[in-house]
Amino acid sequence: MAVSPFDHPILSGLVGDAELAALFSVEAELATMLRFERALAEAEAAEGVIPAEAGRAIVSALDGFQPDVPKLRLGATRDGVAVPELVAQLREAVGPLHGPHVHFGATSQDVVDTGLSLRLKTVLAILEDRIGQCAAAVGKLGERHGAVEVMAHTRMQAAIPVTAARKIESWRAPLVRSMKALHATPDTLLLLHFGGAAGTLDKLQPKAGDAVRRRMAGKLGLKVPSHVMHSERDVIVGFASLLSLITGSLGKMGQDVALAAQSEVGEIRLAGGGGSSAMPHKVNPVDAETLVALARFNATLVSGMHHSLVHENERSGAAWTLEWLLLPQMIVATGAALAIATRLAETISFVPLAV
Amino acid sequence: MAVSPFDHPILSGLVGDAELAALFSVEAELATMLRFERALAEAEAAEGVIPAEAGRAIVSALDGFQPDVPKLRLGATRDGVAVPELVAQLREAVGPLHGPHVHFGATSQDVVDTGLSLRLKTVLAILEDRIGQCAAAVGKLGERHGAVEVMAHTRMQAAIPVTAARKIESWRAPLVRSMKALHATPDTLLLLHFGGAAGTLDKLQPKAGDAVRRRMAGKLGLKVPSHVMHSERDVIVGFASLLSLITGSLGKMGQDVALAAQSEVGEIRLAGGGGSSAMPHKVNPVDAETLVALARFNATLVSGMHHSLVHENERSGAAWTLEWLLLPQMIVATGAALAIATRLAETISFVPLAV
Amino acid sequence: MAVSPFDHPILSGLVGDAELAALFSVEAELATMLRFERALAEAEAAEGVIPAEAGRAIVSALDGFQPDVPKLRLGATRDGVAVPELVAQLREAVGPLHGPHVHFGATSQDVVDTGLSLRLKTVLAILEDRIGQCAAAVGKLGERHGAVEVMAHTRMQAAIPVTAARKIESWRAPLVRSMKALHATPDTLLLLHFGGAAGTLDKLQPKAGDAVRRRMAGKLGLKVPSHVMHSERDVIVGFASLLSLITGSLGKMGQDVALAAQSEVGEIRLAGGGGSSAMPHKVNPVDAETLVALARFNATLVSGMHHSLVHENERSGAAWTLEWLLLPQMIVATGAALAIATRLAETISFVPLAV
Amino acid sequence: MAVSPFDHPILSGLVGDAELAALFSVEAELATMLRFERALAEAEAAEGVIPAEAGRAIVSALDGFQPDVPKLRLGATRDGVAVPELVAQLREAVGPLHGPHVHFGATSQDVVDTGLSLRLKTVLAILEDRIGQCAAAVGKLGERHGAVEVMAHTRMQAAIPVTAARKIESWRAPLVRSMKALHATPDTLLLLHFGGAAGTLDKLQPKAGDAVRRRMAGKLGLKVPSHVMHSERDVIVGFASLLSLITGSLGKMGQDVALAAQSEVGEIRLAGGGGSSAMPHKVNPVDAETLVALARFNATLVSGMHHSLVHENERSGAAWTLEWLLLPQMIVATGAALAIATRLAETISFVPLAV
Repeated sequence: MAVSPFDHPILSGLVGDAELAALFSVEAELATMLRFERALAEAEAAEGVIPAEAGRAIVSALDGFQPDVPKLRLGATRDGVAVPELVAQLREAVGPLHGPHVHFGATSQDVVDTGLSLRLKTVLAILEDRIGQCAAAVGKLGERHGAVEVMAHTRMQAAIPVTAARKIESWRAPLVRSMKALHATPDTLLLLHFGGAAGTLDKLQPKAGDAVRRRMAGKLGLKVPSHVMHSERDVIVGFASLLSLITGSLGKMGQDVALAAQSEVGEIRLAGGGGSSAMPHKVNPVDAETLVALARFNATLVSGMHHSLVHENERSGAAWTLEWLLLPQMIVATGAALAIATRLAETISFVPLAV
Repeated sequence: MAVSPFDHPILSGLVGDAELAALFSVEAELATMLRFERALAEAEAAEGVIPAEAGRAIVSALDGFQPDVPKLRLGATRDGVAVPELVAQLREAVGPLHGPHVHFGATSQDVVDTGLSLRLKTVLAILEDRIGQCAAAVGKLGERHGAVEVMAHTRMQAAIPVTAARKIESWRAPLVRSMKALHATPDTLLLLHFGGAAGTLDKLQPKAGDAVRRRMAGKLGLKVPSHVMHSERDVIVGFASLLSLITGSLGKMGQDVALAAQSEVGEIRLAGGGGSSAMPHKVNPVDAETLVALARFNATLVSGMHHSLVHENERSGAAWTLEWLLLPQMIVATGAALAIATRLAETISFVPLAV
Repeated sequence: MAVSPFDHPILSGLVGDAELAALFSVEAELATMLRFERALAEAEAAEGVIPAEAGRAIVSALDGFQPDVPKLRLGATRDGVAVPELVAQLREAVGPLHGPHVHFGATSQDVVDTGLSLRLKTVLAILEDRIGQCAAAVGKLGERHGAVEVMAHTRMQAAIPVTAARKIESWRAPLVRSMKALHATPDTLLLLHFGGAAGTLDKLQPKAGDAVRRRMAGKLGLKVPSHVMHSERDVIVGFASLLSLITGSLGKMGQDVALAAQSEVGEIRLAGGGGSSAMPHKVNPVDAETLVALARFNATLVSGMHHSLVHENERSGAAWTLEWLLLPQMIVATGAALAIATRLAETISFVPLAV
Repeated sequence: MAVSPFDHPILSGLVGDAELAALFSVEAELATMLRFERALAEAEAAEGVIPAEAGRAIVSALDGFQPDVPKLRLGATRDGVAVPELVAQLREAVGPLHGPHVHFGATSQDVVDTGLSLRLKTVLAILEDRIGQCAAAVGKLGERHGAVEVMAHTRMQAAIPVTAARKIESWRAPLVRSMKALHATPDTLLLLHFGGAAGTLDKLQPKAGDAVRRRMAGKLGLKVPSHVMHSERDVIVGFASLLSLITGSLGKMGQDVALAAQSEVGEIRLAGGGGSSAMPHKVNPVDAETLVALARFNATLVSGMHHSLVHENERSGAAWTLEWLLLPQMIVATGAALAIATRLAETISFVPLAV
């Protein structure tokens, strides 16, 4: 199936991003969920919350554990989340003696949200890398062509001549600001979520709870928040907003390129461009247009993320599901836009104004 | 990959719809695009626009033609749309003699938009069927439980007792209105798009152009618009708006069910519900919450569809791509919501107020 | 105050519409609310629901009744709606004997939603008039300039020459479709809302309730729905969607004009345009740009209207308030866009391609 | 007029904020625009860009200068912005000798965007103050009631008992995070915009340009950006995103309060609440519902702000106008939500679970 172009065997070549999409494959998702269960078992065994043998049995069962995906699908249909069925399958794999110690004290949201944190860690690393490359490519474009005299356009009308550097800097500066914001993100975004049924780790002693949390966070390379943030989604929505700031600024660059590359304007020359099935002579600014489309896509979806802030009570099935429907696509759109913009910056050239 | 939950092997069990998603598989998409090319070749041969043998050769080559999907992906990356590469592959399959007659006078948008029309025909049929079933299920719920006395709630506070019929009718009536709107849709939505490079069928004589169009529309079971509507997207955005009206009204039903099924309220009893990994005793209103999530999802995406109305000039790559990123998911979300709401209506029961 | 440009003494000249904005003045709003109370009193007196003298006393008090607006403001702050305070003021004006019969059997939402219906009646008339004028102006533009040869542009690149008629028709046809949709709207939109506390007219006998409703609808020129639609908002959200379809199609026209009027393209000549404080020689396509801004404004707000469909239970304070925050602005934006587009169509001219 | 409830004499009592709205009155707007012109004249005179007498004449004319608002309205209609007309009026007031030196080297966007910066400075101060008060009030609520045992609810079902502190902390923590983000904002948001026609200060010598900028920034208490950011809107859109993060988190608090205050739940007692015109006994959670409405309002509008990032070329009339239509309302909504949430936190009480 390919309801979303990001999952589409053909269209993902246009708007998708294989590297980031891989993080949202079912395999990657299950792998991070099972990493949570492993870290939990190890930490709880180390702190004496579950028997040491139980811990070893769980870890051992996790080696080579292959979840039954069709059954997980049925479980998700029934429970709204795959975790209860995943835990049941894992308990069966562990066996009747130690199985009941699997997932002890945890709730579905701990598993899902921590699993997401683990993948967001890679997402952040990829995006930081990409945005650095993109800003560098735009910077180099400035070095190559910044001195070219082009026409400034205000309100869709020719204004006065400026150097291309002026335009290029308006593409690069927002990337630099977003890069800084991405750098500042990890501490608030890459959190361990472990709170149990209602965020209070009710099945663990307070002291043991804190100790387990610290151990888990250490194993998983995540931060421990001051309290469990199941129902506080501002951090994740803030991240989604940043994604849309990035694609929006790249959309401005795309729009500028498409306008400057118009047949009648010709201030930017595309190194190659889209062909037409009806007019083989055309050179369409496909990359530039895709940047605009991805900008408007994220500008649309970011709204739903902000709506998901109204996350009622200790856990909202509705608001949480809404995030799942939106965030992965926003991430992939952002990665794709950065790659496309880098390619564009590397290949376009500015054409001096005819005298 | 499964960037979108609608394409996800697990989560599609919660929010997806296999029947509708199948219409957006790459196979279904290519099949409808090739139906366009077949109808075009047949109609152009019949009208003498291309040689009769060319028509036969194209039709014959289309039997069993298997597009090279990885190459189509490369083509879409380059051209923004797979059609130029698809046409090239088809021309090669037809051979050098008749190959040049493939796709004669058509443009990529003709193929893609007509291909969508063909699938929307099935979409409409499925949605009409589903909405009929859903309205019927809600109607039967009214027959079974309409007389039960429940508490009306205004502004989140108990107001005065009413019968359940009052609440049920507020779920059914919008479905009936949307059903009528769906019935009225085909004439404007299920259009043949055949206009060539700029919508004027410049490569065909005006008379032949009209005749080819009529023949194609007959073969494909589509309507011929008064003029080519490449850049007029109000019809498709109107359809997206209707989809969101449907899911929004079902979201209201879901919200009502979740509120009435609250532990402290207990006016609605769920036949079964989601389990929790931490609290096995709970019966979570998963279906009801999913309806709310899908409502907010479509309410979010519909905005992007409205932005795509600003479709510049004779064809906007940016605005058109934006539609692809949004519409299929909105359709699948709507189909899923209708199926979920039907299941919910069939299984919930109203509990009389304790005296 | 002028938080919204539609209310702004300066900017309303750019984006606003005095005629439509007047319908959302506090005076217009209170006048329609009081028309509801008058019709209610008359109908209830005629049907014997309240004493005939009470009916006369209420009607008499309404003549020249001047609500205390600052007190209404306090009331709205406290109650979320001004009606309880308005009813209290009106009861005081009627006096202790007949005052208690004021507003008998009605609830705040009856007054507010019927008041809106009464103003929407005028809104529809104005918009129908405007859209007719706009379509006519665009049609005349086609008569004047349709034969001019211009360049078609696809994907932001020159494609092949077409006549201006092709472009103009892509502006006119969506207006004609929206005009038809506006014509078809009144039966579902212009409803009397009279349901009492929970939509069941619990304080009136069923028979009397129906009779009062019919009388009121007759007096107010509104339709009686089959049942009270307090919590079914699809009709009003459908109307909002139509508004955004209109502005979106006009935004396409605006975008096309701005692109064709670019200094380097020059296919459209503006009769006059915006001046610049820095470059007095410029002719900015202000009207065209404003059409794009208004299109994107409505495309944004329509999303919130769709979210308001999730209107929980028999009356949602949150969802209802959200409508108030969005719909009036969408209406004014639509009226303004139609007026601007008409002016644009009347004044632009197409410039033949240089040979 | 009162198209927007924020400008409405009655409804602004519910959703509005007089203190913040005052910053968007036409008077406040013109005052900040004229402060720009004064600082410009003073700085240019000090740097010898304009004659010292011209500087004095302009400053002197500005004392008591009363713009002709109806003419500004006409100007905005024509030019898309009031500045050309404002400058013309000011030049007339200065007289023919020195008038031509008014606004020297500046463009409309310099005036409008710097005028906004000046008002955003006050906005930030007010919001910081408000968010501090709100966080404090929520904190005190925790001190008063944090120990009360309440029921946690996950997925709209009773889960396990927790202390109210758990819930209260989920309201307070996002406020604290947003407070930090607000504190960090000034350096990027409170910018002097002075770039002239195309952002290059083409009419000033580079050295003089920098010196004038530094002087102006000092006079106005604003930062000088490294380059002119006319077309880079990520900073302002990031601020809008933060506003929506704030209202979204307060919307969660509102939703929680409304749910806990339900008649059947009764975990939160409202100190007073909205009355009903039909059911005088009711205590409606008006403040809580308004928080939800304002959250969804900003979650809707923030999308349009992100769309405005696609700000083509050196100045986009369309994207810039779109900001004007959205940002002031988002600011007022945020201020109002903070005030409402503070009032709510100060007045609600948690009711211990019945045993």
